[in-house]
Amino acid sequence: MNFLEERIASDGQVRAGNILKVDSFLNHQLDVELLDKIGKTFYKKYKDKGINKVLTVEASGIAIACMTAQYFHVPVVFAKKAKSKNLDGDLYTSVVHSFTYDKDYNVTLAKKFLSSEDKVLLVDDFLAVGKAMNGLIDICNQAGATVAGIGIAIEKGFQDGGSRLRGAGYDVTSLAIVDAMDEEKGLTFRDQG
Amino acid sequence: MNFLEERIASDGQVRAGNILKVDSFLNHQLDVELLDKIGKTFYKKYKDKGINKVLTVEASGIAIACMTAQYFHVPVVFAKKAKSKNLDGDLYTSVVHSFTYDKDYNVTLAKKFLSSEDKVLLVDDFLAVGKAMNGLIDICNQAGATVAGIGIAIEKGFQDGGSRLRGAGYDVTSLAIVDAMDEEKGLTFRDQG
Repeated sequence: MNFLEERIASDGQVRAGNILKVDSFLNHQLDVELLDKIGKTFYKKYKDKGINKVLTVEASGIAIACMTAQYFHVPVVFAKKAKSKNLDGDLYTSVVHSFTYDKDYNVTLAKKFLSSEDKVLLVDDFLAVGKAMNGLIDICNQAGATVAGIGIAIEKGFQDGGSRLRGAGYDVTSLAIVDAMDEEKGLTFRDQG
Repeated sequence: MNFLEERIASDGQVRAGNILKVDSFLNHQLDVELLDKIGKTFYKKYKDKGINKVLTVEASGIAIACMTAQYFHVPVVFAKKAKSKNLDGDLYTSVVHSFTYDKDYNVTLAKKFLSSEDKVLLVDDFLAVGKAMNGLIDICNQAGATVAGIGIAIEKGFQDGGSRLRGAGYDVTSLAIVDAMDEEKGLTFRDQG
């Protein structure tokens, strides 16, 4: 097991409804040293891709994005989940369905922060069915920006977001892929060699 | 002017309604090197206070909190603005009024992440009337946690959040205090020596 799989195995909690709680280190309380290691791993993988921006969606993606961007020495841009009064000017917008909340929401990003000149690394804490990630890709397509890679902390491998993205040709790195989870039997990680 | 005041003066934009747009480096696109400098400054100020957690509110506080926590080698805990399905167990809750959106919202924090053992540094990107910060302080009071300091990137000094907090005895560090802003005359920063 790698460092993230070990941490999930020791501190993650499996709950009914395929919920994997990692709130003690990844999305409520944040272990910044762990996040830094995640960022460093993404950097090692994508450092030669000419990436000039790290893109994510608020809120829990922001921490991983910042740690990753420190290694690349590039800015983070995060898409927002609600139209803010302070977001003016032209916006890219994509509609995302949240299974957690069972509703649609918009992700928006100011056009001035993404263009066809950009080569971006997309990052997020979780990838399951991939709705949020597809929203980010949609925004990149609208901007004409190049998606140079996708870095995910935890992929739920029993849902199809990851396989769809790889099938569409995206270079996806998931540090931990959970292929099965059960409240009693625990977690099964995919062997990624 | 310090590094943040210089950046605000060069890249910030004053809009009608006392809106200071800093979305090109602080809360939509994030300049991680600038955020790192902000975090380092908070560390220099509060490093001898025995701080064991950095506390903030999602979403834009997360980036500053992570950069700050890296220096302290402590975790970040961020309060959430909506009750999430994935936030179970006992929660601290405080009601916050947003002037930007003119509505009340709850900030919540899982009780397991804050207790009377904790000495926390509260951080946020903006301090104006201080509603979000008061929500965080309320949560700390509920937990019996000690507020060892408050680190703010930009304080709107013409609103009373900062003076109220200082008057109540909190040790507030605002890297840039904007005492006046005008679409034509620009920004006036408070001389902090």
